[in-house]
Amino acid sequence: MNKPHPFQPGWRTRQPLEKSWRSIFKWGAPDQFKHPNAGLYTLLKNSFGLDDADFKTPQREGDETVLLGDTCPPQLTDDQVKTLENIVGKENITGDDYSRVKFSYGKTMEEIYDLRDGNVDHLCDLVIHPRDAMDVQNIVRFANQENIPVYVFGGGSSVTLGLRPIKGGITLVMSTHMNRILEFNETNQTVTVESGMMGPDFEKSLNRAPSLFKAGCPYTCGHFPQSFEFSSVGGWIVTKGSGQMSSYYGDACDLVVSQEYVTPTGSFKTHAYPATATGPLVNDIMKGSEGSFGILVSVTLKIFRFMPGNRKKFSFIFPDWEHAVKACRDISQGEFGMPSVLRISDPEETFVGLKQHGIEGGILDTYITARGYKGGQRCLMIGHTEGEKNFSHHVYRTLKKICKTNQGLSLTGYPVTKWEKGKYSDPYMREDLNDFGIVIDTLETGVSWDNLMNVHEKVRAFVKSRPQTLCLTHCSHFYPQGTNLYFIFIGQFSNRDEYKTFQENIIDHIETSGGSLSHHHGVGKMIAPFMERHLGKEQMAVLKGLKNHFDPRGIMNPGGTLGLD
Amino acid sequence: MNKPHPFQPGWRTRQPLEKSWRSIFKWGAPDQFKHPNAGLYTLLKNSFGLDDADFKTPQREGDETVLLGDTCPPQLTDDQVKTLENIVGKENITGDDYSRVKFSYGKTMEEIYDLRDGNVDHLCDLVIHPRDAMDVQNIVRFANQENIPVYVFGGGSSVTLGLRPIKGGITLVMSTHMNRILEFNETNQTVTVESGMMGPDFEKSLNRAPSLFKAGCPYTCGHFPQSFEFSSVGGWIVTKGSGQMSSYYGDACDLVVSQEYVTPTGSFKTHAYPATATGPLVNDIMKGSEGSFGILVSVTLKIFRFMPGNRKKFSFIFPDWEHAVKACRDISQGEFGMPSVLRISDPEETFVGLKQHGIEGGILDTYITARGYKGGQRCLMIGHTEGEKNFSHHVYRTLKKICKTNQGLSLTGYPVTKWEKGKYSDPYMREDLNDFGIVIDTLETGVSWDNLMNVHEKVRAFVKSRPQTLCLTHCSHFYPQGTNLYFIFIGQFSNRDEYKTFQENIIDHIETSGGSLSHHHGVGKMIAPFMERHLGKEQMAVLKGLKNHFDPRGIMNPGGTLGLD
Repeated sequence: MNKPHPFQPGWRTRQPLEKSWRSIFKWGAPDQFKHPNAGLYTLLKNSFGLDDADFKTPQREGDETVLLGDTCPPQLTDDQVKTLENIVGKENITGDDYSRVKFSYGKTMEEIYDLRDGNVDHLCDLVIHPRDAMDVQNIVRFANQENIPVYVFGGGSSVTLGLRPIKGGITLVMSTHMNRILEFNETNQTVTVESGMMGPDFEKSLNRAPSLFKAGCPYTCGHFPQSFEFSSVGGWIVTKGSGQMSSYYGDACDLVVSQEYVTPTGSFKTHAYPATATGPLVNDIMKGSEGSFGILVSVTLKIFRFMPGNRKKFSFIFPDWEHAVKACRDISQGEFGMPSVLRISDPEETFVGLKQHGIEGGILDTYITARGYKGGQRCLMIGHTEGEKNFSHHVYRTLKKICKTNQGLSLTGYPVTKWEKGKYSDPYMREDLNDFGIVIDTLETGVSWDNLMNVHEKVRAFVKSRPQTLCLTHCSHFYPQGTNLYFIFIGQFSNRDEYKTFQENIIDHIETSGGSLSHHHGVGKMIAPFMERHLGKEQMAVLKGLKNHFDPRGIMNPGGTLGLD
Repeated sequence: MNKPHPFQPGWRTRQPLEKSWRSIFKWGAPDQFKHPNAGLYTLLKNSFGLDDADFKTPQREGDETVLLGDTCPPQLTDDQVKTLENIVGKENITGDDYSRVKFSYGKTMEEIYDLRDGNVDHLCDLVIHPRDAMDVQNIVRFANQENIPVYVFGGGSSVTLGLRPIKGGITLVMSTHMNRILEFNETNQTVTVESGMMGPDFEKSLNRAPSLFKAGCPYTCGHFPQSFEFSSVGGWIVTKGSGQMSSYYGDACDLVVSQEYVTPTGSFKTHAYPATATGPLVNDIMKGSEGSFGILVSVTLKIFRFMPGNRKKFSFIFPDWEHAVKACRDISQGEFGMPSVLRISDPEETFVGLKQHGIEGGILDTYITARGYKGGQRCLMIGHTEGEKNFSHHVYRTLKKICKTNQGLSLTGYPVTKWEKGKYSDPYMREDLNDFGIVIDTLETGVSWDNLMNVHEKVRAFVKSRPQTLCLTHCSHFYPQGTNLYFIFIGQFSNRDEYKTFQENIIDHIETSGGSLSHHHGVGKMIAPFMERHLGKEQMAVLKGLKNHFDPRGIMNPGGTLGLD
């Protein structure tokens, strides 16, 4: 007799239909998927009291073709459209329903809700693909004159409603043409790149520097956020992103040597000095302005020698969260160099992570359990080092000692290899969960060491006070003065508003417990309402003053960005 | 028969008289001196065609008592003085002639000229010693209401006319009372300190952290500018200073975690997060504002474990400037960690340095000359490493290899030990030279690697086009993208105006050759006239917009600071 096949959940493996809602909200490449594995699937069922029957038929898949009908009729006049066509060429402007929706939405959970429902509002009237900085200047000048709102679409991976065209107007897509490397300077170890270049193209060009630019060796950009494959260089900087190797290379803004900006008040390029004591730096002032001051058209970034062969992978299991955190603090303050990747998971994320990486129930699990590292308390650390060979090896040796001192048990490089495989693909699982009414979303914060435990506890206490809600937390960006807390919550929500209230409450708990409102997602229009309370009215007034200087008519990313309008 | 004593130049060894002009312009401690050694003295005579007779009698020594007579009568009304007395207490206000001059002058060459002549103008009316942040708030509020200019005196070591009270008004001396450590936080490795604390007190407190703050180990601030002994923590930051160990620890502004500011528009303290993606950071916006936006009352800074025992000293001689620069670039881009001190001298500075350090004519000199490192071409590198022991030793070993690859010959740690002895005391020689009509002064710039040679050549060409003028240059702050050029020029000038024209021309040559207007001296009122040309009117408008936001009535360090008014 044949053993019956185990139940296969209805994870969707079909590409979204062209021009469908799903083709807009689906993460990443249309033909790529990552489904929860058996361990995670079982966890979901157990956590939410579901059974196989609940995972048979996906819901609200968004397969319908995008059609707007009477929704959001464009407001631009024919004359305005004609002028814009004259600036960039007719072929670089689209105003069809699909384009208007596609380039008006990012990947924020509430945007996904609306797209699944085909329930849209706040669309740009026209999508424009500028060819170069001059096009952007002409567009911004005209838009300012005519009071037309201007939004920028980089990679579209915002999870903070960053690019939502709340006031309509025009959206500039930077990746279509403005995706070139303008200068490669090996002497200064810098590259000047247009803001619309996407992560993989950028990194590939640097890796191939010997053939492309006659460089002496391959280079790397050092910035690898989870959204790497579907985000743009400009987006990394205007939102103050951090890559998964930031502990070694620095956050996106640390890599910026100079920037070229177009604003309603004027255009400029900041000097590319390694350091200068000439007053407050406009180069710094623009960082994190999220399109509300002007448009970043190109940026000069630091680059680094690409030496992946020098990497040493490591992973450790710690008896509890306190020991894992202490080890990371000792590493970050030890003055022996930093590893590039360094991540610790709290007990709940460790529990789920070991499932997801297929470690649970295997040899490693048996080994660590036998050694007294108990599930529900134990915490996983993974990472790898970088840099010149002996430096990299010395960092590895020294952090190993520190981990052992803090009761860490080495688990070899295996869990890192597992993590590396999924480091860009985990977001694909969101659609699978959403298809069955389960929300997976994240919020994150910057914390000083002495407030880490407090923020972690307060936020977890709130999330866990909701029945049947998972809360996985990790730290993944390290500094001598502190780190970040990255919260992933998974739960069933009946509708968008229920979820939104939950999300706002988490942000509130992050803020009141003393965490930063965002470590690297930025603020957008989602976190903006908390800004004045967070910064105080004096500092908000500074940002509003700058907004007013650069954009007196309020045409740049208007509708709440950073809480400035 | 007795050999006649060799001629002793008339270097002055008497302390300045109390309340004399000299007591104001003399560098450093009244009873400390550093005279040119025999080698340097001979060089000066030869360079300027002077003989012993010219060094017999010091000129314009400024021994007269400071008396103002009818010069600069105070403008404040009795009511205004009374209100200020009520705010800080009568005992914390002085308006006597001596105080007014002492706290109105820094160490800029043209200030020294004027003080030697007893020829003063632009004095503050009153000197105020605020006791705390609340005093500063009350003073600034009242000054804003009454339109009284407000200046800040930290350590008084500005060489850019940074603290000159061009518009009169009041000068706040921060070091009298506001010199306390407010919080020592070992967990976060931060210290919160009032802006008036002086370098040595600050560093000593950190070194003594185990006894003062029950810390687990001694700490260091990591910032050691040449002015260290006579500059304040606040001054380091508002002027964007760099210490002699910046290549490892970072520049002053890199150490800033958060700041507390009093401005006419309002007071605020920025959050002390290790990183945050909440828009443009007011913490960054204030850096380098040089008192023109408001008053820095306290600052939270990174601190580092104090491990001087782990240092490895090194020095190398290179055949020429090109090889020395190339070695430094290889070190800075090598990704194996950075040394803390790293300095290379160009051929002329090497020539003078070997004299000054007593190396010329000795064993080392014979050795390197025999090995083919020719005077007039050869270049000296000195430095030492820092950090965890094996890290520090690895940096040492690796940079040694790089130096050898670039034809560097190791000279042991001896020249470093010589340099360390003089690292804070060299400025004392200025009075000796000035006493005999010789000016020694400096200007400096930040440069990218690919423009270093050009700026060095252009500036040197101009300086050397003046007869009998020395031009010594070094690089002492290193980044993967470039370094600084520090120019020291020595020459005879007949008067202040002749010198001023010369100085302006050097600044002009720095700027036109593509260097930054300042790497770490700041801008003050001296370099300010070049700012708009340097930054362009768009970026200047941003700074002016900020000035107008924080200080709409123009009372904060008015009279040209940063070119903002």
